[in-house]
Amino acid sequence: MSAQDTVESAPNWLPEEDINFVRDRVPLIYVEAVPVRLDHLGRVEKVGLLLQAMPDGSISRAVPSGRVMLGETIREALWRNLCKDLGPESDPQLPASPTPFTVVEYFPDPERTGFTDPRHHAVALAYIVPVLGPCTPPDNALDFSWVRPEELETPALEAELAGGHGRLVRMALANTQRLG
Amino acid sequence: MSAQDTVESAPNWLPEEDINFVRDRVPLIYVEAVPVRLDHLGRVEKVGLLLQAMPDGSISRAVPSGRVMLGETIREALWRNLCKDLGPESDPQLPASPTPFTVVEYFPDPERTGFTDPRHHAVALAYIVPVLGPCTPPDNALDFSWVRPEELETPALEAELAGGHGRLVRMALANTQRLG
Amino acid sequence: MSAQDTVESAPNWLPEEDINFVRDRVPLIYVEAVPVRLDHLGRVEKVGLLLQAMPDGSISRAVPSGRVMLGETIREALWRNLCKDLGPESDPQLPASPTPFTVVEYFPDPERTGFTDPRHHAVALAYIVPVLGPCTPPDNALDFSWVRPEELETPALEAELAGGHGRLVRMALANTQRLG
Amino acid sequence: MSAQDTVESAPNWLPEEDINFVRDRVPLIYVEAVPVRLDHLGRVEKVGLLLQAMPDGSISRAVPSGRVMLGETIREALWRNLCKDLGPESDPQLPASPTPFTVVEYFPDPERTGFTDPRHHAVALAYIVPVLGPCTPPDNALDFSWVRPEELETPALEAELAGGHGRLVRMALANTQRLG
Repeated sequence: MSAQDTVESAPNWLPEEDINFVRDRVPLIYVEAVPVRLDHLGRVEKVGLLLQAMPDGSISRAVPSGRVMLGETIREALWRNLCKDLGPESDPQLPASPTPFTVVEYFPDPERTGFTDPRHHAVALAYIVPVLGPCTPPDNALDFSWVRPEELETPALEAELAGGHGRLVRMALANTQRLG
Repeated sequence: MSAQDTVESAPNWLPEEDINFVRDRVPLIYVEAVPVRLDHLGRVEKVGLLLQAMPDGSISRAVPSGRVMLGETIREALWRNLCKDLGPESDPQLPASPTPFTVVEYFPDPERTGFTDPRHHAVALAYIVPVLGPCTPPDNALDFSWVRPEELETPALEAELAGGHGRLVRMALANTQRLG
Repeated sequence: MSAQDTVESAPNWLPEEDINFVRDRVPLIYVEAVPVRLDHLGRVEKVGLLLQAMPDGSISRAVPSGRVMLGETIREALWRNLCKDLGPESDPQLPASPTPFTVVEYFPDPERTGFTDPRHHAVALAYIVPVLGPCTPPDNALDFSWVRPEELETPALEAELAGGHGRLVRMALANTQRLG
Repeated sequence: MSAQDTVESAPNWLPEEDINFVRDRVPLIYVEAVPVRLDHLGRVEKVGLLLQAMPDGSISRAVPSGRVMLGETIREALWRNLCKDLGPESDPQLPASPTPFTVVEYFPDPERTGFTDPRHHAVALAYIVPVLGPCTPPDNALDFSWVRPEELETPALEAELAGGHGRLVRMALANTQRLG
């Protein structure tokens, strides 16, 4: 349960030259989680967003995500990445079903799907994950904040969600009927 | 499935002659919840079953369920029926999405769908609901117990789940990949 | 939504006084279908909309929908209502799974869910249905047209989709990733 | 649309040593399709199965599947693999939504998920795909046949579905309510 402590030394961590070899040959598989606070009826009250430095150097809001490593199940990858991004007290409630609410395909070319990642082609399984505990962002994230669904409809906030993450969060909210 | 018997003071409770008039004319809408205990990775460890008297007088295992009343949302009906059947401390975690994992159609005639209800045609929206707190069955239930998924594959337990509830629970477990 | 008006000889058609008695006591169950033309990769090219007279006398765009009648399965109700609204040549491809992409709850009070029906409380199971054949609207519909997903983002078209049908269609498009 | 014609010479086809390097470092992403014949109400009448030689030399029944290649969308991978395995006339009806009905995780170690692939760790997005046209299996498949759902409950047929494909097909049938 403390996978996040050992990411640097994990046996499946890949050196830069290996990951470059791989990403030139196959799509990588990711998990993405839209963290939510729900009321007792299951309605979304807040969506959790990280403020972080992106691979291209810009500052951006994003949802917790990360690569599925060799030998790791999707559930283990979700748990590891949520604990890494939201802290050890966050108490994420992983879903009973492994079926994602959607699958997001990131390409360097923005023409392909509208979801972009300048580094590589990635396929991300996206989940809505209720979070019960306090969230403390990791060192490499600048901030973590809970925002109300209505705030996500403002262009300013939307613009801070790069690579299509604004659209991903809107799709999550449509799935829960907290949209429009 | 006897929610309506025990909410006698609710404004939308229907007298017997009214419900009989209605069930001769339209299908009724129900919610059904398969209560589960999950481990930290979201894997099903236990399924919660009620042991209760059925409308036809037999004793049967079943999952919490009840009618959606006039003016009530699905979320409110889920919450009301779960609290009624599992007790006020059960702390059910209602889903962020209102989409059921399946829809079950009950007919008096067993030839229609294999799901039967001798009283009427009912359409039930079925959800998998993680439950965090202790469960205390209501007065009209004889017992409540948590069973491991493997136990549900025994014919003896299966036989106690009448009207197709055994198949409903198996479909829920297939959805979570805890099956065969 | 006026299926019951035009199936006068069906055994489960209800006289006005009966339906009024029923709708004062229980929610009614409906099916709704968002008709789509897909390309060979399954991407939405067009969404089908009816232009019709609404119960309140206004003119509105809507998707095919109708009540599930007593003794009728959801699949039968979907088929009947699609054939009624799109014509006998439309060749709708009903889904292999009975799970709707969402469940829409209509109340007379717009404060409840944002989806409204002035007549009654209705719970609608909503499906995305690919349609392969030519569509010929029935006599009581003024028009049927295929619109591109982008056109649905214009406020003018949106305004013609009353009762929340614009939001329903947007949720369908979010589910297929044809949105924003 | 004739991706299958050019698999050998496709720019993203990988030489054996490259794929070995990759599969020692990251999980590979696959698509799997359970081909079905539906009646006009969307009920499953038949499931399509390939009889083919497996990587380990045994003979096995399986559903169409294949790797998602670099730069390829999931929809393109589904189309390519279905056309490859079912022939150019098969007319598969790709789903409007990219959300799979389940996600299957294959590991060399059978203890991990029960789904096994001796070659590597693979994550497969699984879809139910109605097929309208005639199916002609490719040269490397020995046979293709349509089987009724009830036949899949016989142990003999089940035993021919290796690596967990029997369970995958049962999960698909549970999703469509054609099970037990």
